[in-house]
Amino acid sequence: MSRPRALVLLSGGLDSATCLAIAHHEGFDCLALTFAYGQRHGREVAAAGRVAAALGAAAHQVVTLPLGETVRSALTGDQAVPKADSVEEIGAEIPVTYVPARNTIFLAHALGIAESTSIRDLFIGVNAVDYSGYPDCRPAFIAAFEHLANLATRAAAEGRPFHLHAPLLELSKGEIIRRGLALGVDYALTHSCYDPTPDGRACGHCDSCLLRRRGFAEAGLVDPVAYVEE
Amino acid sequence: MSRPRALVLLSGGLDSATCLAIAHHEGFDCLALTFAYGQRHGREVAAAGRVAAALGAAAHQVVTLPLGETVRSALTGDQAVPKADSVEEIGAEIPVTYVPARNTIFLAHALGIAESTSIRDLFIGVNAVDYSGYPDCRPAFIAAFEHLANLATRAAAEGRPFHLHAPLLELSKGEIIRRGLALGVDYALTHSCYDPTPDGRACGHCDSCLLRRRGFAEAGLVDPVAYVEE
Repeated sequence: MSRPRALVLLSGGLDSATCLAIAHHEGFDCLALTFAYGQRHGREVAAAGRVAAALGAAAHQVVTLPLGETVRSALTGDQAVPKADSVEEIGAEIPVTYVPARNTIFLAHALGIAESTSIRDLFIGVNAVDYSGYPDCRPAFIAAFEHLANLATRAAAEGRPFHLHAPLLELSKGEIIRRGLALGVDYALTHSCYDPTPDGRACGHCDSCLLRRRGFAEAGLVDPVAYVEE
Repeated sequence: MSRPRALVLLSGGLDSATCLAIAHHEGFDCLALTFAYGQRHGREVAAAGRVAAALGAAAHQVVTLPLGETVRSALTGDQAVPKADSVEEIGAEIPVTYVPARNTIFLAHALGIAESTSIRDLFIGVNAVDYSGYPDCRPAFIAAFEHLANLATRAAAEGRPFHLHAPLLELSKGEIIRRGLALGVDYALTHSCYDPTPDGRACGHCDSCLLRRRGFAEAGLVDPVAYVEE
């Protein structure tokens, strides 16, 4: 019997790489899906390609979306990415790196592709523990999207509901890294930094770098990616 | 006091034109939003521009999405558009003109734009009476998307929830047309046909034409657009 297929959102960062490894480990034949949405830099998309290949994705699809023209965010525009010296300095507010409706938009496109290819399992590597407070990374959002997906499509009429898996939702960053390493993820292939140098080194001080560094520290491991200050 | 702003999805068809007229009549300053998503023909998008201008939209934004590359539908591919001689012949099944997750994708992008521009009212001209049975036109879908929108964004944190208006949801096509005419909609500017001739005449026999023609007949009116057989 062939393996069931799943569609896995893959940004090229640490979380989505781990999510792909988990989906593969759970027995799914994975289509990795990456969005080139007008990010400040293309390193994430390149990293996604490396990660998809390394983790045995059956296919990797890159979809281009014009979010740089339609939504306002420090990740798609010229606004400066905030920097800090520790995770504790990250504010409680939703930060300027939040991209309005990003996960809703990504999941909506993923849903269209999944329905078109008879895939019913979607994976997304969101996390609501060591995260930046983005509203579309929380458990209630995931539950609401799964509910919507089954109303929006042929799924209900066909009696084959969609399942939206978010296996990292309740893990700490350290737990995510340990889980990924146990499944063979090479984190040197991933890219997390919101504001890398032109030669690709991570800044070390954006929210994404701070959370990643603390995760490796918690796990008692050395992060294999290069940082500016090293 | 300035008028509140609303974002109105505008395909260029009869329903969305009426929806724009209603939003305007309800006192909103309207940003009309059209998606060039890989439709078989560009007449809808051109019609949307004419309708937006005629109905006094404050702005009209066209966003290009690559659905032709990602989803399977008779509306974005080479598959034939089904034809019939009357609405009664339209099957009970979801037809091949259904575009997987289309309204979810459109509303997700609309949500990102609305959040980026501090708009909280969204209008969509879906209808669940005289329609093709598309699952993403039903009341439960609209309610689920509004619920999702308020979890996915800053809206909850800011105490300014999104409202998703679907004023045509429970109207018959005849009622929609009468309502639009009362509000000054010029239906000659709209385009409904899924499969027009190269010179722009409507086929008269696709689901969209059949529903439109029956609507005008119900309303006791003559449809001002040109059909092939005339």
